[in-house]
Parts: sequence; C-alpha cells; structure tokens
Amino acid sequence: MAKETAITAVKAKLFAVPLAEVLSDAKHGEHSHFELITVTVTLSNGLEGIGYSYTGGRGGHAILAMIEHDLGPQVIGRDASAIEEIHDHMETYIHYVGRGGIASFAISTIDIALWDLCGKTKGLPLSVMAGGAATTAKAYCGGIDLGFSKDKLLASVQGYLERGFNAVKIKVGRAELAEDLERVAAVRALIGPDVTFMVDANYSMSVEQAITAAKAFQAHDIFWFEEPIVPDNYQGYARIADATGMPLAMGENLHTLYEFEFAFAQSKLSFIQPDASNCGGITGWLRVAELAKKHGIPVCSHGMQELHVSLLAGQDHAGWLEVHSFPIDQYTTRPLVVDNCLAVAPDCPGTGVTFDWEKLAPHRRPSASGS
Amino acid sequence: MAKETAITAVKAKLFAVPLAEVLSDAKHGEHSHFELITVTVTLSNGLEGIGYSYTGGRGGHAILAMIEHDLGPQVIGRDASAIEEIHDHMETYIHYVGRGGIASFAISTIDIALWDLCGKTKGLPLSVMAGGAATTAKAYCGGIDLGFSKDKLLASVQGYLERGFNAVKIKVGRAELAEDLERVAAVRALIGPDVTFMVDANYSMSVEQAITAAKAFQAHDIFWFEEPIVPDNYQGYARIADATGMPLAMGENLHTLYEFEFAFAQSKLSFIQPDASNCGGITGWLRVAELAKKHGIPVCSHGMQELHVSLLAGQDHAGWLEVHSFPIDQYTTRPLVVDNCLAVAPDCPGTGVTFDWEKLAPHRRPSASGS
Ligand SMILES: [Mg+2]
Ligand SMILES: [Mg+2]
Repeated sequence: MAKETAITAVKAKLFAVPLAEVLSDAKHGEHSHFELITVTVTLSNGLEGIGYSYTGGRGGHAILAMIEHDLGPQVIGRDASAIEEIHDHMETYIHYVGRGGIASFAISTIDIALWDLCGKTKGLPLSVMAGGAATTAKAYCGGIDLGFSKDKLLASVQGYLERGFNAVKIKVGRAELAEDLERVAAVRALIGPDVTFMVDANYSMSVEQAITAAKAFQAHDIFWFEEPIVPDNYQGYARIADATGMPLAMGENLHTLYEFEFAFAQSKLSFIQPDASNCGGITGWLRVAELAKKHGIPVCSHGMQELHVSLLAGQDHAGWLEVHSFPIDQYTTRPLVVDNCLAVAPDCPGTGVTFDWEKLAPHRRPSASGS
Repeated sequence: MAKETAITAVKAKLFAVPLAEVLSDAKHGEHSHFELITVTVTLSNGLEGIGYSYTGGRGGHAILAMIEHDLGPQVIGRDASAIEEIHDHMETYIHYVGRGGIASFAISTIDIALWDLCGKTKGLPLSVMAGGAATTAKAYCGGIDLGFSKDKLLASVQGYLERGFNAVKIKVGRAELAEDLERVAAVRALIGPDVTFMVDANYSMSVEQAITAAKAFQAHDIFWFEEPIVPDNYQGYARIADATGMPLAMGENLHTLYEFEFAFAQSKLSFIQPDASNCGGITGWLRVAELAKKHGIPVCSHGMQELHVSLLAGQDHAGWLEVHSFPIDQYTTRPLVVDNCLAVAPDCPGTGVTFDWEKLAPHRRPSASGS
C-alpha cells in the first residue's frame, strides 16, 4: 500500500437545510428542507477529500449511521487510490442490508470523497477524470412546482430563462390530466417554440394513464417525459414508448448497476438519469454512463448540479444536466456557473465542490456518535 | 379513527448479540454476532406490540436511525388496526431512500409489531391470522458452516438430527468444487437416504459454475440448491434450472414485491424464501406468499424461526421453515418447539414472540436519540 494515501479518518456530518418555501411533486409529498450528508476523508499525508449525498428530507440519519458505524471503519487503513476496489468492497460488505436504498447513498458519499482526493493528488479536475470530452454541459432548470398556481409556475419558468437557461422542466401529475395540459400549454406559450421543454410525473401514473398523457403532451413538443410510472416497472416504460413514441427518461430512483441494466435492456428509454449521490458515487455514475454509451443513450443526471456538471462535461455522449430545486450549489464556494446557456465545469483539481461550512453550520444535526 | 387503538409511542432498541463462535459463508465474510432491532409500539389503550428485524452484524444502527427519525414519527397517531395502510404509507414515505435495503428492514419491525397488536386485540395467534391451515410446519436446520472442517461439519449435522430434525442444509461455495462435493457426500453418507438435504451457496457462483455444481450435486439427492448466483440475476436462475433440472430456492435477499415478481416471472424457482424481517414484515411476507400460491410455488422462509413458524403453519402451500444459526429464539421466552420433526407454532394471541429482555440487556447498543 502507498502509505501516503492511506485513509486515516472518515468524518460524516448531517445537515437539514431549509428550502425557501415548501415544494411538492406528485409522489414525494411536501419538501420543507433537504438533507445533506457530507463526508471528509483524510489521508496519512494530510490531504482531505469531500464527498456527499442528499435526500428530500428523509433517511439522512440512517445514511449517517451507516457511514459512522459500518462503512467508515471498513475503509480506514485502506489505500485511497484503490477507488474501484473500495467501492466494490463497500457494496459487498453491506450487501445483506444493501442492494440499493440507504446503502447506495452512504457508499456514494465515501466514493465521491475518494475521487476528490484522486483529483487533488493528481492535479486533475473531475471533468478530465470523467472522460475529458469538454468543459461545459447542456443544462435545464427543473422545479418541484406541482403545487404552484399557474401564475406562479409561469413566473418560476420565466425566472429560469432570466438566469440564462434555454431548457426547462416542470412537474406533472396533478389530479386531472386537463390541469397538467393547461399548465404545459401555458409554459410552452410562455417560452416559445425554441426552448427545450421536459415534464416529470415522479412515477405517479399507471401505464394506461401515462400513455394517455404522453399522447396529449406531444402537441406541445415535449422533449422527454420523465418517470411516468414506478421505476420498478421496467417493461411498462417500453409499453409507453411503443404506444406513443414519446421519449422517456428515468434513473434518479435506480441505485444498483443491475437496476440500470434492467432499464437499458427492457425500458426503451431515450435518456438515462443516474445520480452520483445515490447510485454508488462517481464510480457508480461512470459505470452507468459506460452502459449508456453501449446502448447509444445519452447520459443525463439528477440533482447536485455542482458535481454532475463535471461528469456530464467529461462524457462525449452527454445529454442534459438537471439544475435541481435543491440548491446544494448555493452552499458551496462556487454556485453553478452558466455561460451562454451551458453549465461550466470547475477547473480546479478534485470534484471542485467546496462547501461553505459557515453557511451550513446552523443546519447541522447531531450524529449518533455525538460528534 | 378508533381512539383506543391509536399509536402513542414507537420505541426502538438495538442489540449486538454475540454468537457462540465466529461463523462464515461464501459471501458475507465472518459473523461474530448478529444484530437484533426491536420495536415496541404502544397504543392509547396501553396495549404493547413487539416487532423486530435482524442483520448479520452490519446496518443495525441505520435501521434504528430510520425507525427513530423517519418511520416512528410517521406512524404515531395512526390507527394501529389499519396495518396494510400503514405498511404502504411507510413504503411511500421513505421511497426516495427506500425501494429495498435498510428501509425494508425498518418497515418490517413496525409492521410485525402491528400484527402482534392485532392478534392480541382479537385474541388470535399468528398462525390463524396467517391463514390458519395448520399449527405446525416442516422444518430444517441450516448452518453457517462453510468454514467448519469436515469433521466439525459432520458433528454439527449430527447435532441437528439429535435435536429432532429430519432435514438439514449446509453451505457450499468453497474455493474448489471438489471440496464442496466431498462435504456434500460426507453429509449424505452420515444422514442416510431418508433425510432431506439442501445446499446454499450464498450467491457466490457464476451461472456457469452453478450449472457445473448443480450437476455434480445431483448424485447426492439434493432437495434444493439455494442462491447459487446473485439474487439480481433473475434470468440466470432460469438458465441454471433449464440446464440442470435442479430445484432452486432464493428470496432472503429480495426486499420488494417487485423483486419477488421478477423472481416468480423469470427465475424458474422451485421454492421461494421471503424473510418477514426484510421484505416489509408480515404484510410483505403474506403478499409474497399469495404470489407464490398464484405461481404454484411452496413458500418457505429465511431466519427468525420463532416467528416464521406461525406464518408457514398458516399457509396451505407452505414449504420448509429454516431453523437458522442466528439463535434469536433463544432470546425469547419460547425457543422454537420441535415435535415429531415438525416445528410447532405458538398458540397465544399475537406473534407469540416475547423477548427475554434481561437476557438481551447486556448486548444493548446506544441509539442516536441517546435513549
Ligand atoms: Mg425527476
Ligand atoms: Mg441462505
């Protein structure tokens, strides 16, 4: 083992960060805050790497507990440069209570910290480590806006355009399809024909409902229909695609490579949206990206735009970066940079995500270890 | 809401219970102890119900944290008699960090406590609530014995026969198939032709290895080959079944109804082994049992024999109860009763599982809430 890069400490913190207002979608209920789980991995040479995950406000304590009690002690003493080996060991070690769920979030935090350390050690930014194809990524703004009135929804979308984006996404899945259609039509009227426009049902529909909705959305030039149905119904996605020709997207709720393989093999998706915070970190995300390339599907992302911007920039088959309503980037020293409608990857060594600990401090939650 | 059965408190405890010796299988490494996570649910009428889950020694703190921070607060105030509604609400509430993993274990604890309360309220034992087909179940003894020498393995199996069982299971998946075969042959020679004999590889093999192994095991009249390959490779199971005709069993690593549906549809299993401690409790187990019946497959179990005995006894398409090496039943007031080679379900109202808290007390671990 290279003794200089031996892991000497893994320190996790949990934050519950309030949102500016309560946000809701079709299935997750109301969001008053998001949880941020950070991990600082220290090496024997003193270098520190930062990794993290996030939730919609539930499960953060369990993620923290798994890092503190199970995964952290397992990685201490290992050579931090053996990233894939550590990743796979964590998956194996926690398998009986893992195979997705909390374990995938917990593994992601440590994996991301190891990539941060790798970049800092080698002097490489994440976009280069992730393939080096480019330094920018196409990006869209998406809102958790299902509960907004139509006026508020339009004002919100107008705000995206003013922030410099040329692609937007709104939630669908209201009680009546007619409401969704009215909102979709109003947004399309506002943004005009040239702005890219996606919708996201947060798996709230049946296959039959989704087919009806997809056909109705087509009149409004919808770029993709995200999570029309439960993520587990892989073949149901294919039925919707076959029946409507509507481009489908999903992936934020898939956690294991097996699940992504099922989606690629069975779901006839047009876009895949892995989230490095819940699919095994950067190692997991890159494995999904490789599968996506094999299947000829553009790789997109979900959440934490401040990190995914580098992953998408690095990939030559990149799709669109989601700029999510959870403003994690606002709690870093470099909130997402948008230039000429493109998101710009940071060029410093490591992930380029440095938290503003002072800004986060008021939102800290105690951990099981009392630290 | 029936105010008498409103949930007023959910209190969780974590125990790390040492095993008499360190045990190992092909994939989970060494087990020095098991974790037991108990939940006491109290109603406004004062009645208490007990639920629980367990692990091989990892993830218990995360399960505890999810009960304390997420699920417990969600069920307090609800009518405890609405068991299925509460079950489904917990799944929905925790979906983003759920869909299996830790969430399935945490949900199971509360669900089991609600069934215990239901039985105590109605004066019904679990075997009756679970179908009422019978009060006994076929049972086999299984060991985590892959690390045992051949002599020790044989002594262990001899012990099962002396305890009154007529069915035994051993681990396979040693470095060389020849070693497995030598052990299998020796056990068959010891037990004679009339004792039922299963083997369990803990998903350590490739499909090709499993096909070779299954063909070799057939000379020794193996009743089922358990988890030859990773649980996620549903179609791989079917390839093994097609190539060898060997009866296959799995289920201990499946957590959601979707996963079980994939297994029933794709895996050509001969037996299914849901574990109420990790598939959503008794509600989850009974849903799997119903699917199994639809597919004509006997429903079996994994672990916590003191509870599953009642579930298997209740079902008219029951297979075999696993009597597991984690002796949870030894920490209850009624360790598993075996009579005439059959496991006997308790006949008191509720699950019939009452923990010996004094015996457990030395193994208590502190919780995040400091209680
Ligand atoms: Mg989405
Ligand atoms: Mg097994």
